[in-house]
Amino acid sequence: MPFLDRFDVVRPAEESRYTRFVIDGQLVGLTQPDFAKALLSVGSVFRLEGRDLVLDDQVKGFQARTKAVRDVLLSLRDQGLVPDWRGEDYAVLPRWGAEPFLAVERAAAGLFGFRAYGVHLNGLVKKDSGLFMWIGKRAKDKAVAPGKLDQLVAGGQPFGLSIMENLVKECAEEANMPEALARQAQSVGAITYRTEYQPLGLRWDTLFTFDIFLDDDFTPENTDGELESFSLMAIDDVIALVRDTDDFKFNCSLVIIDFLIRWGYIGPEEPDYLKIIDALHG
Amino acid sequence: MPFLDRFDVVRPAEESRYTRFVIDGQLVGLTQPDFAKALLSVGSVFRLEGRDLVLDDQVKGFQARTKAVRDVLLSLRDQGLVPDWRGEDYAVLPRWGAEPFLAVERAAAGLFGFRAYGVHLNGLVKKDSGLFMWIGKRAKDKAVAPGKLDQLVAGGQPFGLSIMENLVKECAEEANMPEALARQAQSVGAITYRTEYQPLGLRWDTLFTFDIFLDDDFTPENTDGELESFSLMAIDDVIALVRDTDDFKFNCSLVIIDFLIRWGYIGPEEPDYLKIIDALHG
Repeated sequence: MPFLDRFDVVRPAEESRYTRFVIDGQLVGLTQPDFAKALLSVGSVFRLEGRDLVLDDQVKGFQARTKAVRDVLLSLRDQGLVPDWRGEDYAVLPRWGAEPFLAVERAAAGLFGFRAYGVHLNGLVKKDSGLFMWIGKRAKDKAVAPGKLDQLVAGGQPFGLSIMENLVKECAEEANMPEALARQAQSVGAITYRTEYQPLGLRWDTLFTFDIFLDDDFTPENTDGELESFSLMAIDDVIALVRDTDDFKFNCSLVIIDFLIRWGYIGPEEPDYLKIIDALHG
Repeated sequence: MPFLDRFDVVRPAEESRYTRFVIDGQLVGLTQPDFAKALLSVGSVFRLEGRDLVLDDQVKGFQARTKAVRDVLLSLRDQGLVPDWRGEDYAVLPRWGAEPFLAVERAAAGLFGFRAYGVHLNGLVKKDSGLFMWIGKRAKDKAVAPGKLDQLVAGGQPFGLSIMENLVKECAEEANMPEALARQAQSVGAITYRTEYQPLGLRWDTLFTFDIFLDDDFTPENTDGELESFSLMAIDDVIALVRDTDDFKFNCSLVIIDFLIRWGYIGPEEPDYLKIIDALHG
């Protein structure tokens, strides 16, 4: 099978199937149309401007937006429309690096179709016999992609941490990696995709990607129960799994394909080379 | 100045300012409107379909298309509308890796606004004192970007050579690099941009990018007169030149910015990080 098959999951998320949620002229989310209708049915915080979902002009500033939207969501929660309320805030940004427009309960992020950010780390070991990659296996009780293969370290980006602070935190939780080692990870770029991914709804994600070269004396150990095991795989075996199977969580396979392009394992002789590079950048 | 300034030159090439040239439903060029009018004025090979420039339905297949378009171009050359006729063929592809639709005199490629492809090689030297990059200086008599700084090796992609064959050829011509060494270059991705770049007209280019790590005992020597000199620069000096000056040919600065992202010299703490990554992929 061609590598391009790994992107099949990314293609169906057409903008026209969603209601655009716009704040101050910036597209911040691609909202499920039914959820948009529900938001419009509660009070006057949300309204339509053309076909776009917008906030009422009276609702301005981070605190007012956060409170007004929270009140609507609490009402929808009472109707059973916001399942799995987590009591955790998700920051809605005009664009990466900018001050957030508001904070929203994380359980509603997929319904709103907000852009999300994460960090993914390729863990590499150079041996005389070739290049190896640390591959995690996700716990069978994970809500998302149970039992699928994963990077050495990967996690969503919470509000208030820098990318490197989050990577250090995830390296500790997911692989028991000391901070000094985690900080040797090299930033290598970012990939962006949109997809309908159950049970999350729309994912419109940008993953900040990192590589780290590890010595033989480091063995990862999961400390937060999210991964059930790690294995150190020869790069050819990783390539075959990514190319020929769905064993990897879909976005982890994209991170590996990006790695394979940067390291010449997938080169211009691959017929889909430019299509793949385009697809990695949304 | 921010790195993003290096992309200023890339932004002005709006699709709406050109006439789309479409073959078999594929957009193959963004044609200068005046040139499209001239093509339409000669015989019936070209016609408009809606606002798109297309070939007449009778003109089918590589050979017929190549001959029909060549006859029109010869007529326009006689009117002085195709300056600098080179007698060199340019292959027009539906997409990279596909069989060409036709071959066209290279002097007309910029007028048609065809997509073009090239290879660019970052030449790197690791020393105890840090990372260095070989930088070429373009000859002062070059028609395009005379005297500007350039990669170690860079060149357009001719029809009939593979990407690696072209890289080997350019490595020999531009840097006197033996084939065995050139083949150690590692493919690392591709960047795509569109720009109005004088005297070439519209450039809509995809550059296949490579890195090579060289030993102290290799010194590049230009053999085709396109570069007047090489210098081995500390990476911090290269970064400063790319960030703060226009000394590099614009597309060479983009290749270096892509390198700086892949090697962590530009990281997520850069406010324009995601904008830069987007801009590198057209």
